[in-house]
Amino acid sequence: MAHLSDIEIAQAKKLEHIIEIAKKINIVEDDLEMYGKYKAKLPLSLIDDEKIAKNNLVLVTALTPTPAGEGKTTVSIGLTEGLNKIGKQATVVLREPSLGPVFGIKGGAAGGGYSQVVPMEDINLHFTGDFNAVEKANNLLSALIDNNIQSKSNNLNIDPRTVLWKRVIDMNDRALRDITIGLGGTANGVPRQDGFNITPASEVMAILCMASDIENLKKRLGDIFIGFTYKNEPVFARDLKAENAMAILLKDAIKPNLVQTLEENPAIIHGGPFANIAQGTNTIIATKMGLSLSNYVVTEAGFGADLGAEKFLNIKSQFAKLNPKCVVLVATIRALRHHGGAKKEVYNTPDLEKVTEGFSNLEKHIENIRKYNIEPVVAINSFVSDSKEEVNFVIEKCASLGVQAVLSEGWAKGGEGTKKLAEAVVDIVENKATQYKPLYDWNSPVKEKIEKIAKEIYGAENVAYDNKALLNLRRIERLGFGNFAICMAKTQKSFSDDERLIGRPKGFTVTVREIEIAAGAQFLIPILGKMMRMPGLPAIPASENMTIDNDGVISGLS
Amino acid sequence: MAHLSDIEIAQAKKLEHIIEIAKKINIVEDDLEMYGKYKAKLPLSLIDDEKIAKNNLVLVTALTPTPAGEGKTTVSIGLTEGLNKIGKQATVVLREPSLGPVFGIKGGAAGGGYSQVVPMEDINLHFTGDFNAVEKANNLLSALIDNNIQSKSNNLNIDPRTVLWKRVIDMNDRALRDITIGLGGTANGVPRQDGFNITPASEVMAILCMASDIENLKKRLGDIFIGFTYKNEPVFARDLKAENAMAILLKDAIKPNLVQTLEENPAIIHGGPFANIAQGTNTIIATKMGLSLSNYVVTEAGFGADLGAEKFLNIKSQFAKLNPKCVVLVATIRALRHHGGAKKEVYNTPDLEKVTEGFSNLEKHIENIRKYNIEPVVAINSFVSDSKEEVNFVIEKCASLGVQAVLSEGWAKGGEGTKKLAEAVVDIVENKATQYKPLYDWNSPVKEKIEKIAKEIYGAENVAYDNKALLNLRRIERLGFGNFAICMAKTQKSFSDDERLIGRPKGFTVTVREIEIAAGAQFLIPILGKMMRMPGLPAIPASENMTIDNDGVISGLS
Repeated sequence: MAHLSDIEIAQAKKLEHIIEIAKKINIVEDDLEMYGKYKAKLPLSLIDDEKIAKNNLVLVTALTPTPAGEGKTTVSIGLTEGLNKIGKQATVVLREPSLGPVFGIKGGAAGGGYSQVVPMEDINLHFTGDFNAVEKANNLLSALIDNNIQSKSNNLNIDPRTVLWKRVIDMNDRALRDITIGLGGTANGVPRQDGFNITPASEVMAILCMASDIENLKKRLGDIFIGFTYKNEPVFARDLKAENAMAILLKDAIKPNLVQTLEENPAIIHGGPFANIAQGTNTIIATKMGLSLSNYVVTEAGFGADLGAEKFLNIKSQFAKLNPKCVVLVATIRALRHHGGAKKEVYNTPDLEKVTEGFSNLEKHIENIRKYNIEPVVAINSFVSDSKEEVNFVIEKCASLGVQAVLSEGWAKGGEGTKKLAEAVVDIVENKATQYKPLYDWNSPVKEKIEKIAKEIYGAENVAYDNKALLNLRRIERLGFGNFAICMAKTQKSFSDDERLIGRPKGFTVTVREIEIAAGAQFLIPILGKMMRMPGLPAIPASENMTIDNDGVISGLS
Repeated sequence: MAHLSDIEIAQAKKLEHIIEIAKKINIVEDDLEMYGKYKAKLPLSLIDDEKIAKNNLVLVTALTPTPAGEGKTTVSIGLTEGLNKIGKQATVVLREPSLGPVFGIKGGAAGGGYSQVVPMEDINLHFTGDFNAVEKANNLLSALIDNNIQSKSNNLNIDPRTVLWKRVIDMNDRALRDITIGLGGTANGVPRQDGFNITPASEVMAILCMASDIENLKKRLGDIFIGFTYKNEPVFARDLKAENAMAILLKDAIKPNLVQTLEENPAIIHGGPFANIAQGTNTIIATKMGLSLSNYVVTEAGFGADLGAEKFLNIKSQFAKLNPKCVVLVATIRALRHHGGAKKEVYNTPDLEKVTEGFSNLEKHIENIRKYNIEPVVAINSFVSDSKEEVNFVIEKCASLGVQAVLSEGWAKGGEGTKKLAEAVVDIVENKATQYKPLYDWNSPVKEKIEKIAKEIYGAENVAYDNKALLNLRRIERLGFGNFAICMAKTQKSFSDDERLIGRPKGFTVTVREIEIAAGAQFLIPILGKMMRMPGLPAIPASENMTIDNDGVISGLS
């Protein structure tokens, strides 16, 4: 059993028809837009504000992760199975995987072991076309910009040197990071420096995940800030009359996708923005859809709680008026060893001393969650290399902080391995939840918002601003964008902006190098370091080991 | 009625559920992979060689077209409606539209007026994701190439200056025609000149349309010729172990798509290669699927018969052992005026003299079709500006050649307007069809094949070869690709390679400037002029006039 790969486990599962999954959350067949027998899109008309207010939202986040990730998706899916096992009607709501990493190092993102969403091949490949739609909407805007620069009769006088809007492609393709376009003479555009980002880094993806309906989507798309004219006037997508055509390309992508878990519970998977430079969580529409249909919704936010949960709570929940009632902090013994100073070579070797030392990282995340007036549960995502002593230490240490820490064995056992975790979550939701409170108000001054996050969540002593960031701040004031949410772009490897500072660093300064504007998403993005927006492939790409036979059966996909 | 736009007509239609359409051709619900209620993918297991041999294939092509096109798709759909009206069980099999032109000048390609396939918005937008899958498979190979050039450990020693494989995007985006990639230092790839083509110009699209199943698809993808090593050895996609991952990306795209006509007859729409530099017709799989399910299959090939029909008959039909029993030559009075010398400003003004003069173009196409041992029917695609005298002239002139010419009124009247055309087609199929014969054998020498097409179909006196073409010929011999099909790349505006030579030019020489290799598609592509592989947007793009409301209802799409 333990030797089966994720795809083998997924392929061994006899899937339930999606009509049957839909029935479990009272969706009638006529409301399903099926994509084959095991995937369906759901109409926005199923969203129900009254039910959203009544049902229970649980956020899964993590301590500061190692590069391999600590298994938030696996825990989210496993917890959903466990909740259903103990008699709660629960749906997991997740992001869609990006295609790029599937052929690179990371692989897909449909959970693992016996906690997966299926059909995993489809989810990890084109799925229902949402990423493609985002990519096309993004690149239509790019084509319209360069066409306008080229055109003599319909010209907005855009200064090509100021164009901030980049093309995107859902592929790990480092050779497209820095390019020159418009070469080849007068018929072939105006030369300028450009580059491609990976599709989940597109502002269109961030917008799709913030939008409430098509009208709101159009408004946000029109508000995208592109650059400046030669007279230094700002140019927006609406100046190119782009928003309707972009929304047309997104008309199906705005609808959430229904699939199933390995234990045939409903899973809604929708949208997939990066967690480093965007909000890193599924669409607001999908979260609301889940809450409209299910008593419990388990959802996930990317990277550690300093990034994903912070954005989930201050951006998404505040804007969409969601009330998360419990936060599950995923921890692994491996990551605690890392934060205690263990080197990569000994990540899998028990070392109680390192775990003890590394606990400071988890402790800070626990403190942080409580700042939002939410009680956390710690899920220890179980690995075979964990020693009993290490696990017990974490459980006891958490107990001393008044937090229940539970071993989560969803990867090996599915819902049977997460019943205790489910019970701990239900205890918080039913007995200890009140009204969560965000850390800052969107209407506060920009610097105040940034400093609140940096000092209260990261634990920074000071915030420094590079000259470029100060100029950006002036631009933001001039354009009237000061009341946007703060969407921090910071390394996921440390509380600080220096990835070498593991554990719970103190007394450090974070430096804001620049501040980007995503006017359609209504984000200001302080850049605290070099952010990766276009990954590369490894020397031996994962694609080399994939096969497909004449019946369409795939192997080597992970 | 006549004032409704295509999209208004399409939206007014109450669609039949795709399950009901499928029933008409004896497909059971369980075999359908539904994409919403009105689209479905069909499994390859429905292909039946015995039925293919028994049923009737009708090819719709055209005289040399004006830039607006002469309505082949509209006639193909209309004829299918007419055939069903007179009691024949008929299915139309067509190409998928490219997204790029939808936002440019040309618009989509789902027919027009009362001869449309629906849902037209979906078909013209992302449809079932096939174009996206082709794009991703193409661009994965690109990423693998540049990754290999970058890599130190897994390096094939590819000379970046020889890489012929380009990236693609389904967008009209002229600024991507000529670009430089890999800038920005050692971490970001190796700098080289590159460019993007539009997705239907990808060899992956041509391959998908030639493939018989997943195994054959993989073989062809692996055979893609990429360029040379520094030691002048050829490099293929299989050297990068790319073919399985590319085929995985195409696992759903290989399945044909079922939709419906406005009169609720089945329509299969699958694949969409360009007609100027590729084969310009739907997948072989879709044609075979149609013939497995339907007594009559009406299909279409791009541009005039010198391009589309020539490739359909010599490449596709010869390779797939299809036997087209009738060719419908679409003519418009407007195009005949054009070939008689009328200027664009008076295309819509009756002028019997110009039509008489321009008939020579149609006559040559009639002669050409008969060289394949197939009898043509001429469909005069009716326009309000046609005069009775002009139409009668064409009918009588065709009769004098032993060809039935019939007014086709499918645009205005649907199947009711094409019953006479349907009867003329049935007469040929049932009474005059024998075994068609291709013009050349793939195994003949390359120059002989090229000259046969140029002299017998185009009517050229001579074929000249530029030095580059002669070098290419040597390369082709060296690589052992001499037995590939010839896929001519020539202007669609003239029988010759000079677009100004309208009518039936004589005594001209065509010049082969170079010969490209599409080793996966098994094509040699003689380039007879400058071919457009990446269109641009007009000064005022169509996107500016499109709208979508909060219920998802679109206007301005054509």
